[in-house]
Amino acid sequence: METLINKLKTAAPKAALLMAIAAGSALQSCSKSDGSGNGGATADALSSDAASAVYVAPGKHDELYSFLSGGFNGQVSVYGIPSGRLLKIIPVFSQHAENGYGYNEETKAMLNTSHGFVPWDDLHHPKLSRANGTTDGRWLFVNGNNTPRVARIDLKTFETVEIMEIPNSAGNHCSPYPTNNNEYVIAGTRFSVPLDMKGGTSDVSLENYEKEFRGSISFIKIDPKEGDMELDFQILVPGFDYDLANGGKGPSEDWVFFTTYNSEKAGTLKEIGASQNDKDYLAAINWKLAAKYAKEGKLHEMPANYYHNKMDKGTHTAKSTVKKNVRYLLPEECPGMMYLLPAPKSPHGIDVDPSGEFMVVSGKLASAIPVFSFAKMQDAIKNKAFDGEKNGIPVLKYESVLKGEVKEPGLGPLHTEFDGKGNAYTSMFVSSEVVKWKLNDLKVVDRIPVYYSVGHLMIPGGDTKEPYGKYLVAMNKITKDRYLPTGPELAHAAQLIDISGEKMKLLLDFPTVAEPHYAQAIVANKVAPNSVKFHKLDENKHPQAARKESEANVTRKGNVVHAKMTSIRSHFTPDNIEGVQVGDTVYFHVTNLEQDWDVPHGFAVMGANTSETLIMPGATQTLKWVPKKAGVYPMYCTDFCSALHQEMQGYIRVSPKGSNVPIKFSTGKKKQNIPGVASTK
Amino acid sequence: METLINKLKTAAPKAALLMAIAAGSALQSCSKSDGSGNGGATADALSSDAASAVYVAPGKHDELYSFLSGGFNGQVSVYGIPSGRLLKIIPVFSQHAENGYGYNEETKAMLNTSHGFVPWDDLHHPKLSRANGTTDGRWLFVNGNNTPRVARIDLKTFETVEIMEIPNSAGNHCSPYPTNNNEYVIAGTRFSVPLDMKGGTSDVSLENYEKEFRGSISFIKIDPKEGDMELDFQILVPGFDYDLANGGKGPSEDWVFFTTYNSEKAGTLKEIGASQNDKDYLAAINWKLAAKYAKEGKLHEMPANYYHNKMDKGTHTAKSTVKKNVRYLLPEECPGMMYLLPAPKSPHGIDVDPSGEFMVVSGKLASAIPVFSFAKMQDAIKNKAFDGEKNGIPVLKYESVLKGEVKEPGLGPLHTEFDGKGNAYTSMFVSSEVVKWKLNDLKVVDRIPVYYSVGHLMIPGGDTKEPYGKYLVAMNKITKDRYLPTGPELAHAAQLIDISGEKMKLLLDFPTVAEPHYAQAIVANKVAPNSVKFHKLDENKHPQAARKESEANVTRKGNVVHAKMTSIRSHFTPDNIEGVQVGDTVYFHVTNLEQDWDVPHGFAVMGANTSETLIMPGATQTLKWVPKKAGVYPMYCTDFCSALHQEMQGYIRVSPKGSNVPIKFSTGKKKQNIPGVASTK
Repeated sequence: METLINKLKTAAPKAALLMAIAAGSALQSCSKSDGSGNGGATADALSSDAASAVYVAPGKHDELYSFLSGGFNGQVSVYGIPSGRLLKIIPVFSQHAENGYGYNEETKAMLNTSHGFVPWDDLHHPKLSRANGTTDGRWLFVNGNNTPRVARIDLKTFETVEIMEIPNSAGNHCSPYPTNNNEYVIAGTRFSVPLDMKGGTSDVSLENYEKEFRGSISFIKIDPKEGDMELDFQILVPGFDYDLANGGKGPSEDWVFFTTYNSEKAGTLKEIGASQNDKDYLAAINWKLAAKYAKEGKLHEMPANYYHNKMDKGTHTAKSTVKKNVRYLLPEECPGMMYLLPAPKSPHGIDVDPSGEFMVVSGKLASAIPVFSFAKMQDAIKNKAFDGEKNGIPVLKYESVLKGEVKEPGLGPLHTEFDGKGNAYTSMFVSSEVVKWKLNDLKVVDRIPVYYSVGHLMIPGGDTKEPYGKYLVAMNKITKDRYLPTGPELAHAAQLIDISGEKMKLLLDFPTVAEPHYAQAIVANKVAPNSVKFHKLDENKHPQAARKESEANVTRKGNVVHAKMTSIRSHFTPDNIEGVQVGDTVYFHVTNLEQDWDVPHGFAVMGANTSETLIMPGATQTLKWVPKKAGVYPMYCTDFCSALHQEMQGYIRVSPKGSNVPIKFSTGKKKQNIPGVASTK
Repeated sequence: METLINKLKTAAPKAALLMAIAAGSALQSCSKSDGSGNGGATADALSSDAASAVYVAPGKHDELYSFLSGGFNGQVSVYGIPSGRLLKIIPVFSQHAENGYGYNEETKAMLNTSHGFVPWDDLHHPKLSRANGTTDGRWLFVNGNNTPRVARIDLKTFETVEIMEIPNSAGNHCSPYPTNNNEYVIAGTRFSVPLDMKGGTSDVSLENYEKEFRGSISFIKIDPKEGDMELDFQILVPGFDYDLANGGKGPSEDWVFFTTYNSEKAGTLKEIGASQNDKDYLAAINWKLAAKYAKEGKLHEMPANYYHNKMDKGTHTAKSTVKKNVRYLLPEECPGMMYLLPAPKSPHGIDVDPSGEFMVVSGKLASAIPVFSFAKMQDAIKNKAFDGEKNGIPVLKYESVLKGEVKEPGLGPLHTEFDGKGNAYTSMFVSSEVVKWKLNDLKVVDRIPVYYSVGHLMIPGGDTKEPYGKYLVAMNKITKDRYLPTGPELAHAAQLIDISGEKMKLLLDFPTVAEPHYAQAIVANKVAPNSVKFHKLDENKHPQAARKESEANVTRKGNVVHAKMTSIRSHFTPDNIEGVQVGDTVYFHVTNLEQDWDVPHGFAVMGANTSETLIMPGATQTLKWVPKKAGVYPMYCTDFCSALHQEMQGYIRVSPKGSNVPIKFSTGKKKQNIPGVASTK
């Protein structure tokens, strides 16, 4: 098989060729001069059709929610489809000064890890929770790639409610993949590392990469009612790089599949070293059997140290617990649990079609796309059609599991999605196009250029049993000239493509926040009706909540000052505080007394070494401040809340350390020296 | 004059009425059931027109850049107009984990203040730099409201290049306002505070608010060539709250105007206490005369302590300097420099029309909009038509300076913009509408509902001598049901309105990031041609830059380790580092060797207590890491850069403290144990 890497070796100087590959557009197969990619019909008519197709008139709602990973911003972006409008950024793994996430006392613990407080991650794959193999609109699971973690977002509130660290992982890339009824969310390591099996250290020379580095795949149990996660067990796997994963469906629903690269086990210069073998592997794991083995006592245990952070519902405050061990299975001890399927070469995406019969593997350096048959795989296992083994894991014969190959699909295939009508769509990174082909005969039937260097594709539900085959979103890695230039740093670019007809039609370019890797989408009515509008004040169990203005107070205990405050249009209670001293630790606990939709109040103190905090109606949030110098510090509402928002302001007086100014605060009840104003109550 | 506050006093319970005011929609004067606000024509035809008007076909560019303040996220958002697409978020005052701003060693110093490192601010007003009273596309000035600062963004790179703290200020709200040729950028305090005139402390009882609190207005000189800022002098002003500002033009170009509220000097319960007087003031300051007084030795000096942070061009690294005093003028010593114009009541916006003759003041509790005449003001000053004085500042008689009032414009007028065709557009917060009126006869000619509770308006150049009177953007404070619901926390909402004809037409709703206050826009060709595509490697003066792979190395000095690294598709040099110990301070200085547009590389280390850093081509950026436990840590590229991006990865081995593992790193030159791979060079 001719592969790109062979071309690299034999043709022009490597660096130059790699750059050409990355640029992508140079190799486009059918780019149009107008950049629309819509050949045939007149540009104007197409443009007008497309305009109408993506226009959501003022006051109307989008048809779908889409959840795009933020990649290197660590967050999730919610876009409306088809408008491409950014509805919200949900903070997950990164501090978010906008609303205080990771800065205020209630959310800081969400970012605790075994490495300490980590204010960032690299979020790649959002996955919606499932019922019967389709999206159920309850939760969104996402992975932290850098410091291995899985997070859960509650789609009632669009808030991150749980983050769990994954031990024995380093680059949690093929993660998180829910099974068809959220029995498990599965997470695999991208980078292998030496594992600390006995509670010592894993200080191992990098020269021992080949011998001592190992991968792991984690099985996280999901509480069917509340969604809470718990690490059930891991499977320790050979020291390859595990790239992407996908779960089976229907006949294959007990299985989960992982692509691997670097089966060469190159420990340096992976660019070259991990691109030598003509075939790496697709790893197939029977998770139901694994769970059975786990129950039947095949488990080992090793010391571990990982954080599990949860948002407490009553106090709306994150709490961390630390887990101290992890249970694991070894494939060589669990026959029938794991197989390797040879896959060309340095495979990236693995995608299982809606029927659950076909596993599509995209080898980023391969010139054809192999489509494996689940039925043939079952037969091959039964017939022991093995081609040796790796670390005790049987390798199935390539031909024995292959349905066929999509021939000459384009250059650099990465990911495939399905429309539920018998078609597959594969992204071509190098030739910058989306290629549509038929699942039955593997024939290419359409292709459309995308700008530029496309990574993942997303069809709403395109990874489930029930795709919504109307739209496809291409998430492109390179933007260059697609938008007005904004200096060296550019937004990434998504493109919305109409796939309702035979030919794909490009509808819209929309820039995206940071780097979307994968995405999910769901019809609006599966989520919108359950959306919470505000928190109920009488369910607020925060220990420092003031549920009415008369409960507001300021107290000192040693050098710690607690200010229990309230906010309501258009004042804080108290709005004047005296008696704070330099070096005190001051906690401002602000309860938003509003009980209506979309009436947050923000709270900030001048010069505080933290962010603001944005308090939703009914909630309590806390800012911590250690004043460094004496003076008078304004505090104020940061979110324009009412006609008298600018008046929603007060002061904190900070006196020198050791001064004898007593704690004093305005209650709003005292008669003020203002005509006609007796009390705020 | 009947005012809202009178209604508040006499009608329903205050809290309920304030909530009704805030909700806004209850009082809309002409809302349509379809929410589009376009009466008359059929909804379908209008919708199709609007769709075409805002649709920017794939590959085409927007007509204008717009710069929306991020409000409580501390950043600037760049949107394309008319598409409403978010092209970029420019980090200014807040840490931005997405690209490492405020986390990496090169940008941390940008967030230094006299209060220490402040990772957030509340950014309200972007203002484009000017030449001859029109936008010149060179820089964008923005204010930090919370910890008083002014920042400058370079529109060649769309990067924040300078942040200067403003002393004697507390709530830098009426800021920054450039004069017609950027002679000065002017910044006023919102909250008055006790000033530390002698270098002691300003620890003053809040009960002395009326006597001891004072405001200040700062005059920042702009270097005409490079744009660098320098605080020239301040004017100390009475202890009111200064809300918004605007500069004169043409005949009034030597003047700058400030609205004030709380001329009552209420120190608590401002919601009520600052709403007593029937009139507050518009402060008029002759800045040219002030500059002359400053030159002529009327200046006093007081101790100060404020930070000035600048991005060094060669090293692309922020450096802080601390200033220790500030010079000031006193209005009572500078005759002719400052006047007060009575303005009803609790005025918010002050906007000067393109001719420079009319000053429009929007009293948020007033039922009419006064329009002042600059010519009449000049006459009144000449004729000494005074109505007493405040702190030695003459108060001009209301009628002597009034051109007239816009009668019954709507409820809660806030801000006015101009189309350059004789029309003014005023936002009505309480009645949620935009009202169009004629500058010549002050008659209302059109009104359109907006959703909901509109704050600022923006017409491109609508605050300059040359408005681009085609579009108006309404920035609304309340969103509620305008988009698919996203839990308690919702995006704010902007609306794009076509103002090219007699009647305003609503074109598009687009959600916005955080809270846009004011915005600016500029035709694309004033900015796009100058946009820098990458940094030139041979101009990189970073002391730790490796300008080629052979310069990469890792060195130890005591417990500090410097790793000078390079990145190029698709590898880091070195990609393996050993000899780091627990407790070392490790600096990774990564130089991106690429010299092409849109080829950043990201760099991250597993578990590091910082963000990633996103390195633009030609630049060097540094992450600091203090490893806490022994082990093997992957590092990798976080921005999908090439077909072999997943292979762009390496490891750092961390050994226990005191171990004898020497520093060792891969050079890419050593023969690797991989067939056919001898060297990366």
